[in-house]
Amino acid sequence: MATSPLVTDEDAGPRVKAVFDDIRETRGTDYVNNFWRALAADPATLERTWQEVKAVMGAEVALDPLTRELLYVAVSATSGCSYCVHSHTAAARAKGMTDAQYGELLAVVGLAAKTNRLAEALQVPVDEAFLR
Amino acid sequence: MATSPLVTDEDAGPRVKAVFDDIRETRGTDYVNNFWRALAADPATLERTWQEVKAVMGAEVALDPLTRELLYVAVSATSGCSYCVHSHTAAARAKGMTDAQYGELLAVVGLAAKTNRLAEALQVPVDEAFLR
Amino acid sequence: MATSPLVTDEDAGPRVKAVFDDIRETRGTDYVNNFWRALAADPATLERTWQEVKAVMGAEVALDPLTRELLYVAVSATSGCSYCVHSHTAAARAKGMTDAQYGELLAVVGLAAKTNRLAEALQVPVDEAFLR
Amino acid sequence: MATSPLVTDEDAGPRVKAVFDDIRETRGTDYVNNFWRALAADPATLERTWQEVKAVMGAEVALDPLTRELLYVAVSATSGCSYCVHSHTAAARAKGMTDAQYGELLAVVGLAAKTNRLAEALQVPVDEAFLR
Amino acid sequence: MATSPLVTDEDAGPRVKAVFDDIRETRGTDYVNNFWRALAADPATLERTWQEVKAVMGAEVALDPLTRELLYVAVSATSGCSYCVHSHTAAARAKGMTDAQYGELLAVVGLAAKTNRLAEALQVPVDEAFLR
Amino acid sequence: MATSPLVTDEDAGPRVKAVFDDIRETRGTDYVNNFWRALAADPATLERTWQEVKAVMGAEVALDPLTRELLYVAVSATSGCSYCVHSHTAAARAKGMTDAQYGELLAVVGLAAKTNRLAEALQVPVDEAFLR
Repeated sequence: MATSPLVTDEDAGPRVKAVFDDIRETRGTDYVNNFWRALAADPATLERTWQEVKAVMGAEVALDPLTRELLYVAVSATSGCSYCVHSHTAAARAKGMTDAQYGELLAVVGLAAKTNRLAEALQVPVDEAFLR
Repeated sequence: MATSPLVTDEDAGPRVKAVFDDIRETRGTDYVNNFWRALAADPATLERTWQEVKAVMGAEVALDPLTRELLYVAVSATSGCSYCVHSHTAAARAKGMTDAQYGELLAVVGLAAKTNRLAEALQVPVDEAFLR
Repeated sequence: MATSPLVTDEDAGPRVKAVFDDIRETRGTDYVNNFWRALAADPATLERTWQEVKAVMGAEVALDPLTRELLYVAVSATSGCSYCVHSHTAAARAKGMTDAQYGELLAVVGLAAKTNRLAEALQVPVDEAFLR
Repeated sequence: MATSPLVTDEDAGPRVKAVFDDIRETRGTDYVNNFWRALAADPATLERTWQEVKAVMGAEVALDPLTRELLYVAVSATSGCSYCVHSHTAAARAKGMTDAQYGELLAVVGLAAKTNRLAEALQVPVDEAFLR
Repeated sequence: MATSPLVTDEDAGPRVKAVFDDIRETRGTDYVNNFWRALAADPATLERTWQEVKAVMGAEVALDPLTRELLYVAVSATSGCSYCVHSHTAAARAKGMTDAQYGELLAVVGLAAKTNRLAEALQVPVDEAFLR
Repeated sequence: MATSPLVTDEDAGPRVKAVFDDIRETRGTDYVNNFWRALAADPATLERTWQEVKAVMGAEVALDPLTRELLYVAVSATSGCSYCVHSHTAAARAKGMTDAQYGELLAVVGLAAKTNRLAEALQVPVDEAFLR
C-alpha cells in the first residue's frame, strides 16, 4: 500500500499530464506505471525524475539499453527495493534479456554481495596497483 | 588496516599456495591482490571463493566479461565497499571500459539509487503488468 | 506475517502491560501499534526501546518534533524498512507535514541517495575544508 | 584515492567550466569541492547532478535549508557514505546547525537505525491505521 | 510474486533434480523451499549455491549450527531481506533457539545498527589499539 | 577524521566523566575508546548508548558474550561500518574468538550476503512453512 495516493489520469493537473503524455510518447505505450503515479503527488520531483530517466536510459551512447537495464536490476537487488526489482526485471526482459543472461546477472550479483561483505569484514587495504 | 594479516607467499601453506598459483595462472600475472591474501587466513573460504569467482567471472557464456565487471562495480558502489569499488573499477578499465562507458555506468548507478529510495519512501505497489 | 506473535492486551504480562500503559498515556491514544506488540515478546528490549523513543522523540529541545519525524522517515526510506516508512510517514502527517513538505523530503532523500552512490563509486577524497 | 582524476580548473573543458562557474556564483565562494571535480570526468552527469542539487537544495519552499541539510546528513550516515557525511555535516554547520541540534540529529539517526532493524527482524505487519 | 517461476519437481531437469534430491537427503525432509525452486531456473547458480550452503552451514567445525543460524538471521535483518529473515528464523527455531535467545539476538542486532550509524555519522577514527 | 572533536578526560564535564568512569570500571581497563569520546559531545546520547551497551552486552543471560560479539561483527560487516568492524573484531578476539571461529564467521557472513541478494533479486515468496 503506497504512502501517497496514485494519481490517475483524471486527477492529473497540467504539469503531471504533460509528463504522463511524454512517458507515453517516449515509450510508445499507453501504460503509465505506478512509480510515476506515486511521484506525481509532487510535480517538481516527477518532472526532474522523468527528465533524468529519459536522459540516462533513453539515448544509446556508450552502453547499450539492455546493459543499462541489467545495471539497474543489479543496483535494485543490492539495495533491496522490491518495486524496482520487479519493474526493471520486466524492462530487461522486454529489451531482450535471455534466461541465460538473467542467470549470469544473478550469479554476479550474488558473488559481488559475498565478496563485498568479506572485504568489509576483513577491511582489506586497497592495493597500490588499483589506485590511479 | 586489515583485521587479519595479509598472507605472503612465504607464509602460505600448501592449500593457500595452490590457490595463489591458480590465480596467477588463470589471470596470466604474477600479482595476487590483497583480497586473496586476507582471505587466505581461512583456506576453506579462500578455496570456495576463488572457485566461485573463477566460475562466475571467467567463462564467457551469455554476458561478456566487461559487462560482468560493470555489474560488479555497480553492486560494490551500491553496497558501499571501498576495496571492491577500487579493484573492480581497475579490472573494468583493464577489460576495456572507456571513459564514456564509465560515465554512463555512474549515471545509471546514481539514477537507480535515487529511484530506489523514492520507490521505498512511497511504498509503490507493484504493477500487475510487472508480475509474471 | 511477523516472525513473532503480536502480543495482545490479554496476553501481556505486567512488564509489558506497564509499557503499553505508558505508550497510551504518553501519546494520548488507546492505540498501541504492531511494532510494540511484536517487541513485547522480549520485555527487556521492549522497555529499553520505548524508553529511548520517549527520550529521543518526546521532549522538544533543539529540533522540533516534525523535523525529527522527517529525519525518521528519511532514515527508514534509506535503509529500506517498509513498516518504518509507513508508521513514521503517518506520524509525520499527524504532526502537520504538508504535501509540499513531503514532496521536498522525497526530493532530498532521492537526491542524497544518488549523490551518495556517485561519491562511493568515485571514492571522492574528503576535502581539507570539510575536516574540523 | 579517487577512482577518477579530479578535474582542475585548467583541465576543465567548456561544459565543465560552465558548471564550475555556476557553482561559484550560486554559492558565493571560489571553492569547488572534490565531488564536482570527480564528477567532471563525465560532463553530462556533472550537469544533471548540479542542476538537481541547485533545484532541490537551493530554493526555500516548504522546508528550510537547514532542515534539508539535516536530512542529507541523515541519509548519508544511514547509507554509509563517508565523503557525504563530511561534506554535508560541514554544510549543516555553515547553515547554523548548533551542537545541540547535531546531538539530536545523531540521536534520531541512531534510534531509527535500531528500530528499523528490529522491525525488519520481526517483519512487523503494517498497521491498518498507517495506511492511507 | 517471484520474478522467476518456481520450478516444481515435475519441471525439474536432471541437474536440478540432483540438487533437489541432495537437499532432501541432507536435511532429512521431503520439503524443498521456494528459494531453491526460484534459483533452479539457472542450474549452475543452483548447484554452486547449494554446495556452498552445504559446506558452510552443514559441518560443525568451530561454531555450532545454532550460532551459525543466529548469524544468518542477523545478516538478513541488517540487509533487509524479508524471505531470508523468515526462512532463517524458522531454521534457528528448528535448531533450538529459545525465546530468550531470540530476544537477545534482536537486542544485539538493534544495538549494533544504532552504534554503526552513530560511528558512521561521527566518522570515528579507528583506535590504534584495535589494529593488529 | 571525526566530524566532531574527541572529548579528552580533561575536557569531560561531570556527566561525561561519570560515563567514562563507569566504562573503565565495568571493563576493568583504563582505556576509553574513540567511539565514546566522539559520542561525548552530546552527553544525553552518550549516557543512553552506554546504558544500552552495558545492558545488552554485559550480563550473560541466554547467549554467551562471545556469541554476542560475533553477531556484532556480522551486523557491522553487513552494514559497512569500518570502525565497528575493527572494534568488535578486536573485542571478539579479546573474548576468545579463535582463527577457526573467525573463518567460519566470515564464511556465514559472505554466504548470507549472497543468498540475501539472490532472494531479493528473485523476490522469492515466503513459504507457508516458515510462517508461524
